[in-house]
Amino acid sequence: MTYCIGLRLKKGLVFMSDTRTNAGVDDISQVCKLKTWQKPGERVVTLLTAGNLATTQAVVSLLDERSKAPEDRSPSILEAPSMFQIASIVGDTLREVVKTYAPDGQEAASPFGATLILGGQIKGSEPRLFLIYPEGNFIEASDDAPFFQSGETKYGRPILVRAYDPEMSFEDAVKLMLVSFDSTIRANLAVDLPLDVQVYEADSFVVTAQQRIHRTDPYFQQITNGWGEALRGAFQSLPDFQFASPEPPKPE
Amino acid sequence: MTYCIGLRLKKGLVFMSDTRTNAGVDDISQVCKLKTWQKPGERVVTLLTAGNLATTQAVVSLLDERSKAPEDRSPSILEAPSMFQIASIVGDTLREVVKTYAPDGQEAASPFGATLILGGQIKGSEPRLFLIYPEGNFIEASDDAPFFQSGETKYGRPILVRAYDPEMSFEDAVKLMLVSFDSTIRANLAVDLPLDVQVYEADSFVVTAQQRIHRTDPYFQQITNGWGEALRGAFQSLPDFQFASPEPPKPE
Repeated sequence: MTYCIGLRLKKGLVFMSDTRTNAGVDDISQVCKLKTWQKPGERVVTLLTAGNLATTQAVVSLLDERSKAPEDRSPSILEAPSMFQIASIVGDTLREVVKTYAPDGQEAASPFGATLILGGQIKGSEPRLFLIYPEGNFIEASDDAPFFQSGETKYGRPILVRAYDPEMSFEDAVKLMLVSFDSTIRANLAVDLPLDVQVYEADSFVVTAQQRIHRTDPYFQQITNGWGEALRGAFQSLPDFQFASPEPPKPE
Repeated sequence: MTYCIGLRLKKGLVFMSDTRTNAGVDDISQVCKLKTWQKPGERVVTLLTAGNLATTQAVVSLLDERSKAPEDRSPSILEAPSMFQIASIVGDTLREVVKTYAPDGQEAASPFGATLILGGQIKGSEPRLFLIYPEGNFIEASDDAPFFQSGETKYGRPILVRAYDPEMSFEDAVKLMLVSFDSTIRANLAVDLPLDVQVYEADSFVVTAQQRIHRTDPYFQQITNGWGEALRGAFQSLPDFQFASPEPPKPE
């Protein structure tokens, strides 16, 4: 499992991913799931990967190789004229990798699948954010659906839905994502720190900030310890329930 | 889908379930998933059901029929000497129902399965709470794991983990469960109101309170509207994040 979030804000894009990869609870390891390609001043493209690690690494390596040799750059994510076309290239690359292995007889559901979050900006257009499905097709974030999650999405979703605000600062966005990750990490062993976070400020055409947050990070400790207390306070602030009738009603 | 919670408190047991049943998003209906058998003054046994509706209704009907005719009461959930034996009877009944249909060739994973939460008390022993798996085996709640969820468990789990307290009042427990249900209902169309709630006070040997909470219930409205604001307040109360370095680090 994995947990990744891509947020679209008025100010730009924010990405966060965990670093745990596992093949069973007895075989865990750490891997970076955030990859960026950029031509400073012209484009920034960031990819978050969730799913089969062999698949996601192959996708990233193919995209990488094809953007390095200039003669192979057509089509390449460093040359494509729009984020939509980059999403198509990434989706096609994912399909290509999955198609290589899928027909060989594995029976588990979509064992070679991966779900990708792609975001970035090319000079002349707005920052855009996409969710690419294992089949290679994709959807784009909008004002109605301004963020994407992949991997273990459920535990951390309620706080995103309630506290996300398109006007929020990058600092608040990182705080929000850390709360969402904290709820997930507490519930699923297959999601864990350290976390990689990246911020891209609209129209900057260069990565604004990127850092790795470890379990021992004092701020993460404040969030994980403080959130329990803050939640209990929020819970206590709600009005008290009263039973409808003092006498016990008959059960069926 | 479905969502059910059974909580074990120092004061007794609290159960809550939604009432939505569906066979696809285009075929939804309402059904009660909470069933109680009692011999007032001697035992109370409550069952929450999640899973295939034909299976859960068959299990409840078989348990019901077998507890009505005194000559069929051995073994019956109204005669068994312990909650452990009742859990065994319920699990065996579930296996019996699933076994009837499962070998006929359905290919989906466990299409006749159901997961049950069983709680109650028999005079002479403590209140006990069990989670019964589709295979008919079961686990019991303990001080370390004092509540069970079934169905769509993930969205509503973080608040239970953070705010549950074995010493809490029944009113607080219902409030907590409503918050957990609200997060779930907002995220999954296959969980919906009205909600059935039942409270059993330890050593009372009769259902203490039971009621159905509708979407129009003023208290539920207070919770669903107030929780968003309370969460945002909790979020704002956490310290602000600061990026580690002002200058943008290089991406890979």
